[in-house]
Amino acid sequence: MMTYSTEKLYEEKVFKDPVHRYIHVRDRVIWDLIGTREFQRLRRIRQLGTTYLTFHGAEHSRLNHSLGVYEIIRRIVDDVFAGRPEWDQNERLLSLCAALLHDLGHGPFSHSFEKVFDLDHEAFTQAIILGETEVNKVLTRVSDDFPQKVADVIAKTYENKQVISLISSQIDADRMDYLQRDAYFTGVSYGHFDMERILRVMRPLDDQVVIKHSGMHAVEDYIMSRYQMYWQVYFHPVTRSAEVILTKILHRAKELSEQAYFFAYEPYHFLSMFKGNVTLQDYLKLDESVIMYYFQMWEDEKDPILRDLCRRFMNRNLYKYVEFDPSKEYKKLQELEKLFKKAGLDPEYYLVVDSSSDLPYDFYRPGEEEERVPIHLLLPSGELRELSRQSDIVDAISGKRRTDHKLYYPKDFILDNSSKRAVKKQIREILGIE
Amino acid sequence: MMTYSTEKLYEEKVFKDPVHRYIHVRDRVIWDLIGTREFQRLRRIRQLGTTYLTFHGAEHSRLNHSLGVYEIIRRIVDDVFAGRPEWDQNERLLSLCAALLHDLGHGPFSHSFEKVFDLDHEAFTQAIILGETEVNKVLTRVSDDFPQKVADVIAKTYENKQVISLISSQIDADRMDYLQRDAYFTGVSYGHFDMERILRVMRPLDDQVVIKHSGMHAVEDYIMSRYQMYWQVYFHPVTRSAEVILTKILHRAKELSEQAYFFAYEPYHFLSMFKGNVTLQDYLKLDESVIMYYFQMWEDEKDPILRDLCRRFMNRNLYKYVEFDPSKEYKKLQELEKLFKKAGLDPEYYLVVDSSSDLPYDFYRPGEEEERVPIHLLLPSGELRELSRQSDIVDAISGKRRTDHKLYYPKDFILDNSSKRAVKKQIREILGIE
Amino acid sequence: MMTYSTEKLYEEKVFKDPVHRYIHVRDRVIWDLIGTREFQRLRRIRQLGTTYLTFHGAEHSRLNHSLGVYEIIRRIVDDVFAGRPEWDQNERLLSLCAALLHDLGHGPFSHSFEKVFDLDHEAFTQAIILGETEVNKVLTRVSDDFPQKVADVIAKTYENKQVISLISSQIDADRMDYLQRDAYFTGVSYGHFDMERILRVMRPLDDQVVIKHSGMHAVEDYIMSRYQMYWQVYFHPVTRSAEVILTKILHRAKELSEQAYFFAYEPYHFLSMFKGNVTLQDYLKLDESVIMYYFQMWEDEKDPILRDLCRRFMNRNLYKYVEFDPSKEYKKLQELEKLFKKAGLDPEYYLVVDSSSDLPYDFYRPGEEEERVPIHLLLPSGELRELSRQSDIVDAISGKRRTDHKLYYPKDFILDNSSKRAVKKQIREILGIE
Amino acid sequence: MMTYSTEKLYEEKVFKDPVHRYIHVRDRVIWDLIGTREFQRLRRIRQLGTTYLTFHGAEHSRLNHSLGVYEIIRRIVDDVFAGRPEWDQNERLLSLCAALLHDLGHGPFSHSFEKVFDLDHEAFTQAIILGETEVNKVLTRVSDDFPQKVADVIAKTYENKQVISLISSQIDADRMDYLQRDAYFTGVSYGHFDMERILRVMRPLDDQVVIKHSGMHAVEDYIMSRYQMYWQVYFHPVTRSAEVILTKILHRAKELSEQAYFFAYEPYHFLSMFKGNVTLQDYLKLDESVIMYYFQMWEDEKDPILRDLCRRFMNRNLYKYVEFDPSKEYKKLQELEKLFKKAGLDPEYYLVVDSSSDLPYDFYRPGEEEERVPIHLLLPSGELRELSRQSDIVDAISGKRRTDHKLYYPKDFILDNSSKRAVKKQIREILGIE
Repeated sequence: MMTYSTEKLYEEKVFKDPVHRYIHVRDRVIWDLIGTREFQRLRRIRQLGTTYLTFHGAEHSRLNHSLGVYEIIRRIVDDVFAGRPEWDQNERLLSLCAALLHDLGHGPFSHSFEKVFDLDHEAFTQAIILGETEVNKVLTRVSDDFPQKVADVIAKTYENKQVISLISSQIDADRMDYLQRDAYFTGVSYGHFDMERILRVMRPLDDQVVIKHSGMHAVEDYIMSRYQMYWQVYFHPVTRSAEVILTKILHRAKELSEQAYFFAYEPYHFLSMFKGNVTLQDYLKLDESVIMYYFQMWEDEKDPILRDLCRRFMNRNLYKYVEFDPSKEYKKLQELEKLFKKAGLDPEYYLVVDSSSDLPYDFYRPGEEEERVPIHLLLPSGELRELSRQSDIVDAISGKRRTDHKLYYPKDFILDNSSKRAVKKQIREILGIE
Repeated sequence: MMTYSTEKLYEEKVFKDPVHRYIHVRDRVIWDLIGTREFQRLRRIRQLGTTYLTFHGAEHSRLNHSLGVYEIIRRIVDDVFAGRPEWDQNERLLSLCAALLHDLGHGPFSHSFEKVFDLDHEAFTQAIILGETEVNKVLTRVSDDFPQKVADVIAKTYENKQVISLISSQIDADRMDYLQRDAYFTGVSYGHFDMERILRVMRPLDDQVVIKHSGMHAVEDYIMSRYQMYWQVYFHPVTRSAEVILTKILHRAKELSEQAYFFAYEPYHFLSMFKGNVTLQDYLKLDESVIMYYFQMWEDEKDPILRDLCRRFMNRNLYKYVEFDPSKEYKKLQELEKLFKKAGLDPEYYLVVDSSSDLPYDFYRPGEEEERVPIHLLLPSGELRELSRQSDIVDAISGKRRTDHKLYYPKDFILDNSSKRAVKKQIREILGIE
Repeated sequence: MMTYSTEKLYEEKVFKDPVHRYIHVRDRVIWDLIGTREFQRLRRIRQLGTTYLTFHGAEHSRLNHSLGVYEIIRRIVDDVFAGRPEWDQNERLLSLCAALLHDLGHGPFSHSFEKVFDLDHEAFTQAIILGETEVNKVLTRVSDDFPQKVADVIAKTYENKQVISLISSQIDADRMDYLQRDAYFTGVSYGHFDMERILRVMRPLDDQVVIKHSGMHAVEDYIMSRYQMYWQVYFHPVTRSAEVILTKILHRAKELSEQAYFFAYEPYHFLSMFKGNVTLQDYLKLDESVIMYYFQMWEDEKDPILRDLCRRFMNRNLYKYVEFDPSKEYKKLQELEKLFKKAGLDPEYYLVVDSSSDLPYDFYRPGEEEERVPIHLLLPSGELRELSRQSDIVDAISGKRRTDHKLYYPKDFILDNSSKRAVKKQIREILGIE
Repeated sequence: MMTYSTEKLYEEKVFKDPVHRYIHVRDRVIWDLIGTREFQRLRRIRQLGTTYLTFHGAEHSRLNHSLGVYEIIRRIVDDVFAGRPEWDQNERLLSLCAALLHDLGHGPFSHSFEKVFDLDHEAFTQAIILGETEVNKVLTRVSDDFPQKVADVIAKTYENKQVISLISSQIDADRMDYLQRDAYFTGVSYGHFDMERILRVMRPLDDQVVIKHSGMHAVEDYIMSRYQMYWQVYFHPVTRSAEVILTKILHRAKELSEQAYFFAYEPYHFLSMFKGNVTLQDYLKLDESVIMYYFQMWEDEKDPILRDLCRRFMNRNLYKYVEFDPSKEYKKLQELEKLFKKAGLDPEYYLVVDSSSDLPYDFYRPGEEEERVPIHLLLPSGELRELSRQSDIVDAISGKRRTDHKLYYPKDFILDNSSKRAVKKQIREILGIE
């Protein structure tokens, strides 16, 4: 008997996708989910936040990525896993839905917003799936407990660990999509690996998804690709500069609000965030258009710091940076803070240390804060072996955290000799700029 | 003596570009123009307007395209034309600036805005270049008459026709960039041609830019690519549906404003548009973030038409269409209009005929309204020949206008049987939907 | 019950292919056919004959192409046609075998060999499939009448016209593979079209394979791609020059043999060809290695013409050409022939008119010599319409034969002034060379 | 004054190249070198030897690669180095010629031939450049000492180490071309790195070519690409199987010749090789066509081993393999050798251990047998730093040799139970095959 969960569209729908060529939709449930307002909202949130200020092509939305993750999972469950005894094909629809919806709770410029306003996009993903939303209505039509199942997969608490592994592990559909997609839209030559090969060698096995040994080199390529994308794109110093300024804008706006500052243009959408009582409905109204609208308005605010920061962000007049070693240069930082104050620049906003770090691949270390599930290779003998024990290259970089610290500041202000010349000269000497 | 116009950056700046691999900037003037707020504003205007609702990858901005056009011109003037006696290398900087700035006056969703509010983006491009703007300041530093020269090139009134031809002709840097760029971001397989080849065979000659005969096949490919992009991407029926709804939103808002409707949320940014007295400063504040912000607010307006249209646009619940022949089916349209009214649907907003037409290539027809400059091939003998006289394929399609008409309507309303069942049934019969 | 015809390999075999990414083999029959000596022989015959002398990348073999055609058919029958009532899935294996083997009878540099020695590669394909060969043994294991069926499909006499249509029609797997493959290996930017799209819209219908209307633009692109490849690659004047010389080598060798010339190195492999009694076993020994071996030997033959021509071919010292209009310039040709003789150059070998012509697409014209099956579009109404009636572009070029004539000659000889200076001067004047 | 060394062609010549898009030739000397018979001979030698039996696309010739290396050097010297004070532009033509000719002495299937007949392709490169050849004539026209200079660069004894470094170092034009080219023709997804970026950051400095620090990640990608190509393509076990058989064919033919075996078809081209007195003229006649010709003839020789091996090679009926640890499994090998003899299979030809090993990157270790020049990064401070000290990834793999051993054997013979069933059963048990 055909039920909603097995209903197929009369004709397959196809979206043209630059990364996977086509996104294929045949399931009514998936089609309905794509049409919900909560999913369409992801069009108005960029996948890479402020990265478009460094790589001008990186203007692609999270909707873009979400469709891509869905398509990868669809190929795995329909073309690779279907028919294998270790895989329960009843998990098919659940896997597809979780893939499509895994990023549903992301807000605009998530990283900065979460930090400043103490939000959690994963909690919002859960809330959208389980709350009074169009998405929830569609999922409930499948069955009463279906929304909870989808939420559990995304929260990694679902009982069938194979499903979780497909969507969040060290080699999951999420990462495989974003590495390729972000490489495509930024135009960098990193980010390429043979995904078709990896999909063909994935195997469901007990409580995980493993990789046939013959696919090891494709996985090595994927790990290297991940490494390069982190350092060449995601942690690019110019992007981090934009992120620093964005964070400081939010910070300043909140501070002004707490000081009962009178905004020329009342920031309705921000009020509950300033107060820390954001509802789901408030949250869903936030998208990057809204944020950019306010930033444009704030370019004319009377508070000089808020105004300056917004102008910098909107017109890409970002901070410059010098390398900074926090373990050794603490005194230098203190000295600079003093000088910035003397120069009339609040160091809280104009002198910022930013650190990025990445762990390209990690094997399982039980008991540690972030227990990553390792990648296992399936040897011809049937034995499993953890990737870094088989691959020299992965072994070489696994478990090694690399961290990079930079000190950001507005170079144009420091070079401007119309006032405070002596102090600025001192600052320039310490920062080593001509 | 080095002046501002010949000043080079200490180190060449490079932007990663997915289409041309790298955008190279060595001239101080170009670098300064890129940093202006008017140029950075182009980040907030999509190159393809509503196309992202059909092709989800098409989220790239006009800044993206503007840099691309600049890069193409840079390669032509520096690598192909430099040193040729027929070319005046003094026009180099002017060509680069005109390339970079040629789309500066575009607003959000230009097509719809211009139609509803009677605006003209070309006039705004002129105004930005010649008015009190950061762009004008940079150009004036080159020389007092430089802004006017740039404006003249873009307006096609500049005396050196070679420069105009590079930037606007039937095979110019503008088209060469957008065809490739739009193909890249939508992911379609059309839009590819051998630009490197075309650039290498371009030759300045008298008052035009001609193509060496040996490059004819590459040009044929370009013309075909243009043809396919028009019909597969630019005139895609789903994009036109989004465009129809967008136009109707603006139309409705204007109408409401003229009827002194009380907006729950005052549309400040729109007021001068409603009144028809838009200043340059008003115009520069318009970008797609602002438009999307208002559309989101209007999703909760009390006017049912404005509210419905905005919800459709934001959540991609677009109109469906049937083919429509305006020359023969006029009566049918009248009949439908009557039935729509009976069904409670204002045909002004809910029953829309949209026509698209394109002329893939045209040879020169003096005296006609739109005098297109033809593409000339330079034969080995030194003789010039108009492209369509040499190429069978181009001859086949040149001068032939193709037009496509469709009738758009909200299918969900027509299928909804909760009211007016009889009328809707009649409508469905006429439209031929089940 | 599993029989040989349905036997699957324990694990799918995969060949890496630059054009289709992977060639997948699961059927035992296909695997066995690939392993036959007659199929492996195709490794030693280049897909594009002498084209590698113009496009140095064009060194790919016919084995390469044969695997590609097989893979395209595999995707059609397994992914697109399987399960459709209009298609008889019992034809699956037959389609795959015919695809794989359709070029089996090609010899080295087929075009020239067939012309000079009056051979017919299609007859040899039949002979290999039906004769005493490893290929025949494999096919006979399927069933006694299976070799004949495969031969019939390739000969276009098989009763199920859908199967024939897949492998030889105006939009078949053969053409779709070679256009893309030849573009890939030559490196030209033509030859690209959206094959994935075309495959998805192919439909079996009555006695043909039709294209769903929505795929029309992809088909237009394919037709244009074909047009460009013909004129840019297949009929490239330099390739034709190599072809002219090759033909003349074969011609000379045959002539010498008939004149009982004593070859310093006896051309065993050629003897039956000279005499016109080539057996299948003789034919199968011919491959390009053998030909090149003899040409190398003949570089030192005492006959000055054979020696010169072989040296030219081996060391790419080809003839140059001028445009030539046979309908008007017949007298000029006669005059040149006289002068060549005076200059000591046999015009039979050193003054050659070569003509190429192509018909990019043709609709059905019953009764004409070459009855091409037209491409039919399947309209939403269920009606069929011939492609050129629906597509402006295809209409423009359909049925129009384009022909190009060139006159080839050894420019180095004509420029060499060590002898016959006066005559050569006259020749140069007529040919218009400096 | 224009001399031969500075003479430019009237019009630039362009070859279409799939990897670098176009190969540009403007220098008369280069054009003349390309036209020599010794250079054209490289068309008949595959770049990757027997690899085409594993990757069917890998049929590209060494001429292909040689043009590619030339083009890379041309871009470096003309677009990157020209005008830099550290670079002597007088070395331009020398660099271009050495690039074009660096592989001139390669014979067919070099690896096997050199091993069996104790030949040295580098010595032949020297001999061709300095001997009585067309190449030598062209070079001598530049100046009397020019051939010697070119030979010195290729032999790495030339005084200007920058020139040597461009053509042979750990990041030279040779490697950059072949990694990309071999990846392109095999179709693998490895082998990609951002060469354009690397070229732009190369700097001549003292006696080497260094890399600007900002290009480090592109170099990391190149090193990884190299690593993957070695293990995925160059050391592919199937290719090694073909190589094993090829080596054994040559070995057998030599052995037979030494035993005064009477060849049904006298192997003229091989005689001097069998005797160890190969002249330059003999060597230049060897190409892959010649080899394949003999192998075809030998398929019918009466010696059963030579016949069998040739049939295997020609028809791709290769040996299978098992992993083998020579340090531990020596006894097993001895046991197998005994059993093979009992089974009537000469272990010398039918049981072969093959080992491959690679050192992906090495820093300088003076005094060791193979002193590799390390890659140096140029830091912003002007300081040089050896790559592996700056890059975690390179550090991880540098200096680590990885070796892989396999044991090859004819599985079909071992599975054939028509004779010696008991012995073959024992062999199968030891080899672990069913």
